[in-house]
Amino acid sequence: MNDFRLQKAQRLVAEAGLAGLIVGPGTELFYLTGLHIDSHERLSALVVPATGEARLVVPATDAASVFTALPIVSWRDGEDPYELCAQITGEGVIGLGTALTTDHVLKLQALAPRTVLAQDVLAELFMVKEPGEVAQLRAAAEAIDRVHARVPELLAPGRTEQEVAAELERLIAAEHASVDFVIVGSGPNGANPHHDFSSRVLEPGDPVVVDIGGAFASGYRSDCTRTYQVPGERDDAFDAAYAVLQEAFDAAIAAVRPGVAAHEIDAAARRVITDAGYGEHFFHRTGHGIGLDTHEPPYIVGGNDQVIRENMAFSVEPGIYVAGQWGMRIEDIVVVTADGCEQLNRQPRTLG
Amino acid sequence: MNDFRLQKAQRLVAEAGLAGLIVGPGTELFYLTGLHIDSHERLSALVVPATGEARLVVPATDAASVFTALPIVSWRDGEDPYELCAQITGEGVIGLGTALTTDHVLKLQALAPRTVLAQDVLAELFMVKEPGEVAQLRAAAEAIDRVHARVPELLAPGRTEQEVAAELERLIAAEHASVDFVIVGSGPNGANPHHDFSSRVLEPGDPVVVDIGGAFASGYRSDCTRTYQVPGERDDAFDAAYAVLQEAFDAAIAAVRPGVAAHEIDAAARRVITDAGYGEHFFHRTGHGIGLDTHEPPYIVGGNDQVIRENMAFSVEPGIYVAGQWGMRIEDIVVVTADGCEQLNRQPRTLG
Repeated sequence: MNDFRLQKAQRLVAEAGLAGLIVGPGTELFYLTGLHIDSHERLSALVVPATGEARLVVPATDAASVFTALPIVSWRDGEDPYELCAQITGEGVIGLGTALTTDHVLKLQALAPRTVLAQDVLAELFMVKEPGEVAQLRAAAEAIDRVHARVPELLAPGRTEQEVAAELERLIAAEHASVDFVIVGSGPNGANPHHDFSSRVLEPGDPVVVDIGGAFASGYRSDCTRTYQVPGERDDAFDAAYAVLQEAFDAAIAAVRPGVAAHEIDAAARRVITDAGYGEHFFHRTGHGIGLDTHEPPYIVGGNDQVIRENMAFSVEPGIYVAGQWGMRIEDIVVVTADGCEQLNRQPRTLG
Repeated sequence: MNDFRLQKAQRLVAEAGLAGLIVGPGTELFYLTGLHIDSHERLSALVVPATGEARLVVPATDAASVFTALPIVSWRDGEDPYELCAQITGEGVIGLGTALTTDHVLKLQALAPRTVLAQDVLAELFMVKEPGEVAQLRAAAEAIDRVHARVPELLAPGRTEQEVAAELERLIAAEHASVDFVIVGSGPNGANPHHDFSSRVLEPGDPVVVDIGGAFASGYRSDCTRTYQVPGERDDAFDAAYAVLQEAFDAAIAAVRPGVAAHEIDAAARRVITDAGYGEHFFHRTGHGIGLDTHEPPYIVGGNDQVIRENMAFSVEPGIYVAGQWGMRIEDIVVVTADGCEQLNRQPRTLG
């Protein structure tokens, strides 16, 4: 149980005019209660009413396995757990956690038809990081920076992406509790932003997109991309595009400050890339929040009016991708400060 | 892609008066398309309109990794995938797959406010098994039966539940592609239906609930419970309760036939146990559907009006649990036939 966070949740629920907050198993529940609970067809949920006591609704079949100081309301098969939730919140608009599945959402809505996505209306709760969380993200960034520092020595011509990825997994695991993901996109494979790695052999002069991340035991994540070049001849067209990418990255970083809308940060990077004629080749958002999840709000994307606040943490990661030829991406995690942002990743952003 | 299942889905969508069906990543999507796709904050969904072509809506970032003959509609960050879904279905009531998360459900409902849970209104699609699926479940039942046949030799006094569980994992893995779960509940641990296993040492005469399951490479599952006794003195009270449990199990099996409601099968078992005075000690439902998921509809539970149909497959698993003393459960998987059911598990149901 985390009394501070639950009290904050209740205050924000009341301030937002909600009757309550209902959060199913997942990272949001872990954040608020410290509990890892399995999600399945029997509803488990934390219910935080605007006034009164927060409770954990769990199936009687699971209750013996849930260790918490929170008051538990258990329900037996044949009883209606949605009715229990609605009784705790009372009537009104209900904020729903992100991880509930359709079966639970529709059955809750049958009793409480006015629902909103909690992460949207409770941004301070689910997007703004506490100092301890920022410290975890900073340590995770330093960990992945140490891995990136080793990448150039791994990128020898003749090696496969798989071989490089295997080395990277070992290095990430040594710096974190677990490996989250590894992308080694060489040559044309770099043009697929979600390529992982393949049997492709590195050739002299290949550009290589290396996007890697791990998770600490606390649950907090790292996520950092650098673009490298296997030793060999330089390509003027690639270098020119890379200069544009650096300028776009810098423009996005410069746009980050409290009060700006998420879409404005995206636009700052996109404008530079579009003006240079690569607009069609930057086809993903500029960033995503990070914390206990690798991808979480705020999403730095066109159309997102989310107002950026101090201590939000997210990636800034513009890219340029030319199908069949090459890709490039630069990604840092930033934390919003009073008048700008702190870039948690410190490895050089030049072509490695 | 599975043309037969997609065509069946479209026919049933139209017959149910729905405008369309929207299924997110998970077993339902795998069932309909053969695709394993990750679920995340960017919507991926199969959209089956009542008329017209079924399409797969996927983020542009993932499109290169999705190999299918289905028509793909990809969307870029900043575009609205929910709008794409609504355009494919047109206006009307939309059936939603079970595995969509709240963020996607609420954003779909903003454009298509009338939604229903697809598994409820499309029972023939999501609950009635094809002959090939029944064959897989039958083979899985035979596999887990062979594991249960080995249990008595493992239950020697002095061994821990963990040691027995480790042996069972090895045996299950040898008979399946992977281990799904192992429960070894000896003595008082048997009274927690979701106990897994512990360091408790088996004592002479202990009752032991062994509930085990595995998964085939095809995805189909086994799930079977027998109650054993470590060699030692018999307990008359336990034996008397076990006779009641067998009678309750037989009553539930006898109640299974097309046209009966799920709650009636539950009531058939519960009535026997309640009449014998153990009603408070049978605090879970009588069963759950099984297929690509270990737990799926139909749920055999009080209040569930779902009409049972030929070729539905589910567990029948009454139990009696006395906290601090012992537990007992008998579980078979059954497939509904034209006039009753086939019990897929064949190991003796006497106290092992």
